[in-house]
Amino acid sequence: MADRKIISKETEVSEAVYGLNETLFHNANGYIGVRGCLEEGVPEGFDTMRGMYINGFYDIIPMKQAENLCNFVEEKQTMLNVADTQTIYLYIGDEKFTMTEGTVLKHQRTLDMDAGITIREVIWRSPKGKEVSICIKRMTSFEQLSLFTMEYQVTSLNFDGKITWESYHISDVTNYSNANDPRLAAESEKYLESQVLSAESGKSLSVSWTVKSGLTMCAAVSHRVRGEVLVENTVQQEGTTVVYQVSVNVQKDQAVTLGKYTVFTDSVHSDNPPEDAKAQMQAAWDQGLDYFYQKQRAYLKHFWHHSEMEIIGDAGMNQAVSFNMYQLLQSAARNSNCNIAAKGLSGEGYEGHYFWDTEMFMIPFFTLTNPELAKMLLTYRYDSLDAARKNARLLGHQKGALYPWRTITGEECSGYFPSGTAQYHIDGDIAYALVQYCLTTGDYEFIKEKGGEIIIETARLWLDVGNYSDGRFVINDVTGPDEYTCMVNNNYYTNCCAKYNLNWAVTAYELLKEKNEIAPLVQKIGITEEEILQMKQAAAAMYLPYDEKQKINPQDDSFLSKPVWNLKETPADKFPLLLHFHPLHLYRYQVCKQADTVLAYFLFEDEQSPEVMKRSYEYYEKITTHDSSLSTCVFSIVASRLGMEEKAYEYFGDSAKLDLENTHNNTKDGIHTANMGGCYMAIVNGFAGLRINQDGAALAPFLPQAWEGYRFKFRYRGNLIQVIVADRQVTVRLEEGGSLEIAVYGEKYLLQPGEAVTLDVKSSDI
Amino acid sequence: MADRKIISKETEVSEAVYGLNETLFHNANGYIGVRGCLEEGVPEGFDTMRGMYINGFYDIIPMKQAENLCNFVEEKQTMLNVADTQTIYLYIGDEKFTMTEGTVLKHQRTLDMDAGITIREVIWRSPKGKEVSICIKRMTSFEQLSLFTMEYQVTSLNFDGKITWESYHISDVTNYSNANDPRLAAESEKYLESQVLSAESGKSLSVSWTVKSGLTMCAAVSHRVRGEVLVENTVQQEGTTVVYQVSVNVQKDQAVTLGKYTVFTDSVHSDNPPEDAKAQMQAAWDQGLDYFYQKQRAYLKHFWHHSEMEIIGDAGMNQAVSFNMYQLLQSAARNSNCNIAAKGLSGEGYEGHYFWDTEMFMIPFFTLTNPELAKMLLTYRYDSLDAARKNARLLGHQKGALYPWRTITGEECSGYFPSGTAQYHIDGDIAYALVQYCLTTGDYEFIKEKGGEIIIETARLWLDVGNYSDGRFVINDVTGPDEYTCMVNNNYYTNCCAKYNLNWAVTAYELLKEKNEIAPLVQKIGITEEEILQMKQAAAAMYLPYDEKQKINPQDDSFLSKPVWNLKETPADKFPLLLHFHPLHLYRYQVCKQADTVLAYFLFEDEQSPEVMKRSYEYYEKITTHDSSLSTCVFSIVASRLGMEEKAYEYFGDSAKLDLENTHNNTKDGIHTANMGGCYMAIVNGFAGLRINQDGAALAPFLPQAWEGYRFKFRYRGNLIQVIVADRQVTVRLEEGGSLEIAVYGEKYLLQPGEAVTLDVKSSDI
Repeated sequence: MADRKIISKETEVSEAVYGLNETLFHNANGYIGVRGCLEEGVPEGFDTMRGMYINGFYDIIPMKQAENLCNFVEEKQTMLNVADTQTIYLYIGDEKFTMTEGTVLKHQRTLDMDAGITIREVIWRSPKGKEVSICIKRMTSFEQLSLFTMEYQVTSLNFDGKITWESYHISDVTNYSNANDPRLAAESEKYLESQVLSAESGKSLSVSWTVKSGLTMCAAVSHRVRGEVLVENTVQQEGTTVVYQVSVNVQKDQAVTLGKYTVFTDSVHSDNPPEDAKAQMQAAWDQGLDYFYQKQRAYLKHFWHHSEMEIIGDAGMNQAVSFNMYQLLQSAARNSNCNIAAKGLSGEGYEGHYFWDTEMFMIPFFTLTNPELAKMLLTYRYDSLDAARKNARLLGHQKGALYPWRTITGEECSGYFPSGTAQYHIDGDIAYALVQYCLTTGDYEFIKEKGGEIIIETARLWLDVGNYSDGRFVINDVTGPDEYTCMVNNNYYTNCCAKYNLNWAVTAYELLKEKNEIAPLVQKIGITEEEILQMKQAAAAMYLPYDEKQKINPQDDSFLSKPVWNLKETPADKFPLLLHFHPLHLYRYQVCKQADTVLAYFLFEDEQSPEVMKRSYEYYEKITTHDSSLSTCVFSIVASRLGMEEKAYEYFGDSAKLDLENTHNNTKDGIHTANMGGCYMAIVNGFAGLRINQDGAALAPFLPQAWEGYRFKFRYRGNLIQVIVADRQVTVRLEEGGSLEIAVYGEKYLLQPGEAVTLDVKSSDI
Repeated sequence: MADRKIISKETEVSEAVYGLNETLFHNANGYIGVRGCLEEGVPEGFDTMRGMYINGFYDIIPMKQAENLCNFVEEKQTMLNVADTQTIYLYIGDEKFTMTEGTVLKHQRTLDMDAGITIREVIWRSPKGKEVSICIKRMTSFEQLSLFTMEYQVTSLNFDGKITWESYHISDVTNYSNANDPRLAAESEKYLESQVLSAESGKSLSVSWTVKSGLTMCAAVSHRVRGEVLVENTVQQEGTTVVYQVSVNVQKDQAVTLGKYTVFTDSVHSDNPPEDAKAQMQAAWDQGLDYFYQKQRAYLKHFWHHSEMEIIGDAGMNQAVSFNMYQLLQSAARNSNCNIAAKGLSGEGYEGHYFWDTEMFMIPFFTLTNPELAKMLLTYRYDSLDAARKNARLLGHQKGALYPWRTITGEECSGYFPSGTAQYHIDGDIAYALVQYCLTTGDYEFIKEKGGEIIIETARLWLDVGNYSDGRFVINDVTGPDEYTCMVNNNYYTNCCAKYNLNWAVTAYELLKEKNEIAPLVQKIGITEEEILQMKQAAAAMYLPYDEKQKINPQDDSFLSKPVWNLKETPADKFPLLLHFHPLHLYRYQVCKQADTVLAYFLFEDEQSPEVMKRSYEYYEKITTHDSSLSTCVFSIVASRLGMEEKAYEYFGDSAKLDLENTHNNTKDGIHTANMGGCYMAIVNGFAGLRINQDGAALAPFLPQAWEGYRFKFRYRGNLIQVIVADRQVTVRLEEGGSLEIAVYGEKYLLQPGEAVTLDVKSSDI
């Protein structure tokens, strides 16, 4: 397939474009994230979020409750902007390069997803007429996670003379604030104290520490010049800013280059951040940029080999799906201290918090293409199981674990519990992702070591939350995924989740017992046969609301008794509704922010007949605003399942380019990482109909009319499988692995490595 | 009957007793409130809430929301401690009088509810052996609302010599804060700036102003000494504290007295607070203390004449009911700028906010004994109708008015809406109090000028909040009085309120139309015949939940499907539950903080048969913690209605002495004013069974077994009626007025002034 590249021609000086591209062209590797800010800074008065982040590096800040009831959350973690080492000024003679003076003849950014770098290209004519071509490459290394590099090349186009770089290492940074938004401004406090440890010969090392969370991070910076150096010096300015100035001679058509290495280390991930920073900087410096470029390319080659996806003949869509997968790769933590934030490492929206987004929308991608990473993300939840137990106690539960709705460390950071902590379904979501991981990989060890404990502790919570009423197991006062209806009884989605969670807790228990390996868990968490029996009974008695009259599943017990919100007569400027209406008002209407019951139809499709699902789908479709970015991908998947192919494609289209086309108008705050995973699922689980359950893996692909074809790969139980849907045919090939049994359109096929089965595409119907 | 007095012998130096008595012996007159603090201050390290308040004088303070959703409340009003003029030090020679040095031979406080003063009496022996008798009288004048007086008398018991008073006028005060409670400490900011305008010869005048609310208040202080003055001077200390020092000669058995007058004026109630303060001080000074003591006694004679209540032969209970009525009188605003705070003017609990407490628990007392005051309290709601309309818009309602859950100015001050703003029943509560006022007084003018507009605007809100479902008018996502279950559908109490409100809006409209006086209202608020028809229909179709199985009224649609909280096994130290359990946990159980459905049975007794009410009563009784002070009085009233006489008396007992015996352990923060009104109702509406509705007034008294008898008076349509229940007989006498038709035990009697009807007491049954 063609090169995986995203190109943006920034023809005008625009605050909106700069803000958007800071996000779209950010560099990240799961550990470090660097916003794609202009090296020389934005024009004065432009809003910019100039940030560099470390996944899981946070401070604790107070979150005062307007009215503080018992066990309300009173402080939260917030991801910190840790330094600014991306600032470099360029002088052509004595003229400073900016986008607003002189003439910008070309300005273009490229994200090269095969090379793993971003490139900024400028051709600039100075006010005095000197012309230069500038090319700046940035990379966060997948090979050495602590490393961020910049390569700032300047080519003279029409003069011989001196150019000067002024390169900054700034420790005194704050999080983003917007003076126009008093809520943000109030939070723009300085959380980091810092100190320069050393600064000489283009090398500097700083240490910063948080007051409240007690964390430390170090930034090491080194420079390497290619060109004839005239003069250079390293100055520590007032405070903690180190500036490296270097002037070089340049001749017409000659290129000179400043290489800048940044290494971040921190006490979440290292026992000795300063020593580690020095050592890792030395290692990086010794290897040089070219080495890391090669490693980056190799890493991505391997990545694309396992996750390659192509929309045949649709270059734009191809770019979009590649972009989405690439962002998932950039965002995912590489160790179990951390996870994937709602905005990845691309910006400060949602404060670097981890939500259910990970399990429901992002882990599925990794489970199918990079199960080691999926396992690590699930291990993060295992490592925070104690915090989840503590959270359950705070909520009044004597047993079980309740995962926090939003968190970095595992402690709840949600300030408004009705649409935060009350979303108990996160327990079921985590259980679901865990089971899917195990079914897909066959990783029994994970169940034994970690997964069994998670799934039993979450199942215990459901026993404590729910109760029997008229012989049915009911769950009251929780909030489902749809935040426009909060604290309801018997949310269909939540009850499905709970049923699944309870059933799989029983299965995990029985599996471990069968293998004679249940003893450690019994010892650790005291699980009893009686509890297992209670789980079985509660799952069997679980109440899933069904309305006899309309023959659909109500979102909750009282949903259908509420008036339907008149979406047609709601003016366009009143969306998203949450910014324009008090939540209590929204709660009183049938109106959905996002897929809720419809999401349950994807995950738990056997609970209802296709006819019920279709009627419900059509019902909810009319009242869903998709104000959440997690919605359209789900509507697409379920449309695929129900044979509504056109609709499936339409919703997929809304999802696929959400960030690239900034359709939610807030991509500047960061990417919508969950939607990116949802887009992937809309193809693999939607169009191709992939399902993995106890019966094995099954496909039921169709081809959207607008496409020539599509193909993708996924991993299943050690095998690498390729699926090609094109020319009215489906080909499923076992590319690597042992042997594979897989169902296509309900028929099972056994494949050996290299073998394929090819069938005519069937149009799905319900 | 005997003197109305409360006496407290403070035999020991006790932080708890001082705190409690600061509340119990506070002085207030509806305008000024002064905590009963020790003049010389509490011993070091003792907690004290040293406060002087003006009803309705507030500042606006930020109330940051932990997570700020659309139209959340972001600032609130808070009642301010405005000055300290109650501090007076006494020196016997060079020995300073305190409770911890020397020997306290006697210490006693008295609240004299006929004289309208509090008296503190001390006999003290100084470390050097000098003995004095101290008697300090305090009064907030009912005659001149701006006036607070202290009369500090010292009698030498065994020496001739000098004594000195040091009397303070302190403007630099803050609200109460408690270093042990970080939530309170954070709020102990200084809201008032102040300045001394003049200070000479024992007279001083200060002005203080708030920054945010833009209010001003003035304090004028004057002193008058009875005794041989040796030396006196007035010093302005650093800052804004003025000290008046005076030494007098005293001989054995001689008494000397310092009179101290304080006048408060403020810009809520005056156009020129400084000039008004000067003028009112001059007037007070000219009249002298004895004049005001006489006026105070005359005012109270008039008050007791109309509201006298006696429990025959039970002095303790007599004290308690008198105390409760007296506190209601002290707490009620005397003009429509203000209202009655939850703690009256006795402390800073609930920040001086007005709640539904006024309409449901306090106005009934005034309606029956002092209808002019009741009218004024209702006029406050009329004056804040625009704010209530604005509040409704913020909550998404296109029409109608929604009164705030807690407020001073009429704007919502509730920071947690699920148990605040969501208590929409406040609209119905106000409508109910209004209708009761009109039925009791026959004040048609009030309906025409103010009441009609209130009742139609509140009725409009119900039309907008509710909707039809299966032909029934339902009301979703509101919170009833019971705050242990929030945001529910079809709260029985709320729906009853709404039905009543809608019906009476129709009645008011038709009455005005009949009298040809509807035009101004139609012009002002655009009420249409169609809306009136909608109101009639909604009321008729109002859904009042009823459970066929248990034949009771569920508190809301899903209440009975929840598990019953195990109150028996909840340890005593876990009450009140709200301090020990997260609200989300409480919401998931059948457990009530207070009367909810049971309150509806008192107010709307015709909606259900007595049998249903009795079954429900017994059901709710088992699951109600009475963690709210508004609960036991209601359980008492309804027990009376349902013939459960012993139970009625028992609950009444819990209510009557709640503050005097500090049974809720928080009286130090202020009195429970609503409970005091509830205690009154438990006798008048409970034991005596008084009901006033469109059919007129009706009584159905019984006599609690423990009592010899009881009697009380009430006003009805210009008449003053006395009810005596004693010696197995009920006597109803028309004491003043025209002629009266009144029903007793269902029979109607027509009485002329001076006439009485006497009947045998019937035991009530259902």
